Amino acid sequence: MERFSFSTDIRIRFAETDAQGIAHHASFVVWLEVARVAYLAASAGGYQSIRDRGMEALTTEVFLRYHRAAYFDEMLRIWTRCTDVRGARFRYEYRIEREGEPIADGHTSHATVDRETNRPTRVPKWLVEAIARAEASAG
Amino acid sequence: MERFSFSTDIRIRFAETDAQGIAHHASFVVWLEVARVAYLAASAGGYQSIRDRGMEALTTEVFLRYHRAAYFDEMLRIWTRCTDVRGARFRYEYRIEREGEPIADGHTSHATVDRETNRPTRVPKWLVEAIARAEASAG
Amino acid sequence: MERFSFSTDIRIRFAETDAQGIAHHASFVVWLEVARVAYLAASAGGYQSIRDRGMEALTTEVFLRYHRAAYFDEMLRIWTRCTDVRGARFRYEYRIEREGEPIADGHTSHATVDRETNRPTRVPKWLVEAIARAEASAG
Amino acid sequence: MERFSFSTDIRIRFAETDAQGIAHHASFVVWLEVARVAYLAASAGGYQSIRDRGMEALTTEVFLRYHRAAYFDEMLRIWTRCTDVRGARFRYEYRIEREGEPIADGHTSHATVDRETNRPTRVPKWLVEAIARAEASAG
Repeated sequence: MERFSFSTDIRIRFAETDAQGIAHHASFVVWLEVARVAYLAASAGGYQSIRDRGMEALTTEVFLRYHRAAYFDEMLRIWTRCTDVRGARFRYEYRIEREGEPIADGHTSHATVDRETNRPTRVPKWLVEAIARAEASAG
Repeated sequence: MERFSFSTDIRIRFAETDAQGIAHHASFVVWLEVARVAYLAASAGGYQSIRDRGMEALTTEVFLRYHRAAYFDEMLRIWTRCTDVRGARFRYEYRIEREGEPIADGHTSHATVDRETNRPTRVPKWLVEAIARAEASAG
Repeated sequence: MERFSFSTDIRIRFAETDAQGIAHHASFVVWLEVARVAYLAASAGGYQSIRDRGMEALTTEVFLRYHRAAYFDEMLRIWTRCTDVRGARFRYEYRIEREGEPIADGHTSHATVDRETNRPTRVPKWLVEAIARAEASAG
Repeated sequence: MERFSFSTDIRIRFAETDAQGIAHHASFVVWLEVARVAYLAASAGGYQSIRDRGMEALTTEVFLRYHRAAYFDEMLRIWTRCTDVRGARFRYEYRIEREGEPIADGHTSHATVDRETNRPTRVPKWLVEAIARAEASAG
């Protein structure tokens, strides 16, 4: 059974809708990123602090399954957890809800690279531990 | 062995890059849509003609795997094919290349709904046949 | 001397940055819209309530002057006021700040149209009054 | 009487529309950038070549006046010219048309800065001359 330790709320912008009258499916990909940034801010000093230490996290995979349309000005809750931190790779899982109703779910995969050389670099120990602590507190 | 019948070229816009200096991963989701629109224009009279007949195609799934970063002003070729047209559902597969080099691949799934009622409606026969013809010509 | 009655805070998303390492200038146009939506939510029951009454507000003019670059994850404050509500037209003015430092300023102009006919329609009295009240309270 | 020396065509993407059923007004700002990039590619070896020489062109002002709504899949022609190249500043003017019909017009202003120091740096002589040649040919 899935357990999520963390959530972020976003309000759907008008610019994020399309001519079908719903939130465009690419907008969700941006929201997942907003959720990751919020997750790292809460658990590991923020994404910028990771960038400041000379690393970048590249996105290597995005998967989204859309269950229901979402509309302008609605508030969505993005449940987020970090899993499978291994070597230079890690993964996030997401569940997007509107007042408890499932709207979409998915995952993203990432690789950490050195900012200068652009080569894979292990997720540093402090970050592995910060994520482990964040997820343990979800227990 | 995969065979693609159709490709579209896109040039990466500056607005599609991010502070990592590369094309943002959400931009790819928009390019897949550009490719689908071009595919339907070439094989089935255009997406707008489908909308004009009272249907919408909702995106129900997006999957993208990123192999290499892409950069501002590069030209990418998006190989596209439509597969698994069944009932009210269909699926696209994609391979994105830069001068033959694989940049990303993925798929999207879609459901056709009636524009007024928002209920699933079978992909119409003419569209199934137009897609079959387009894919057969790839043989 | 300018007086602003209302402000909205936005945090810069990674997807809103570009390969110059700064927030892309088109992102600001979206933030102005976020600010207008928040303004109407606070003063006039929300933009959706206006749409629900059969009106759309079209944007007829956008002007932005950028003073300083803004960066990923920064929090910006968007000061917003509605001015010149006349007939079927109204105008917003904006000042964007980062901890009190001016980042950008600008204005947008809008026209209200009937949702069905797409023809200009006067800004309704209740909305004119709601805006007048909101701006008076800024006094 | 205005004379434009250069135009770029863009096709409106579905992702660029909004729930009003029209192209979102912020999409136009991105198209102006696409037009500038095409202009520089045609007249001055491309924007990337400017970046490669250690300069960035920052956008300091955007103005757009929208005359008519534009819709998904329409082809728009963006007439573009560069004016007022002076010191570290230059300006573009635009007219956006759909089959000859005016859709929008506007201008943008820019400042060239040194990529490392982020300080204003004069538009280099070769670029001033390339632009002058491009505009003279419009005569």
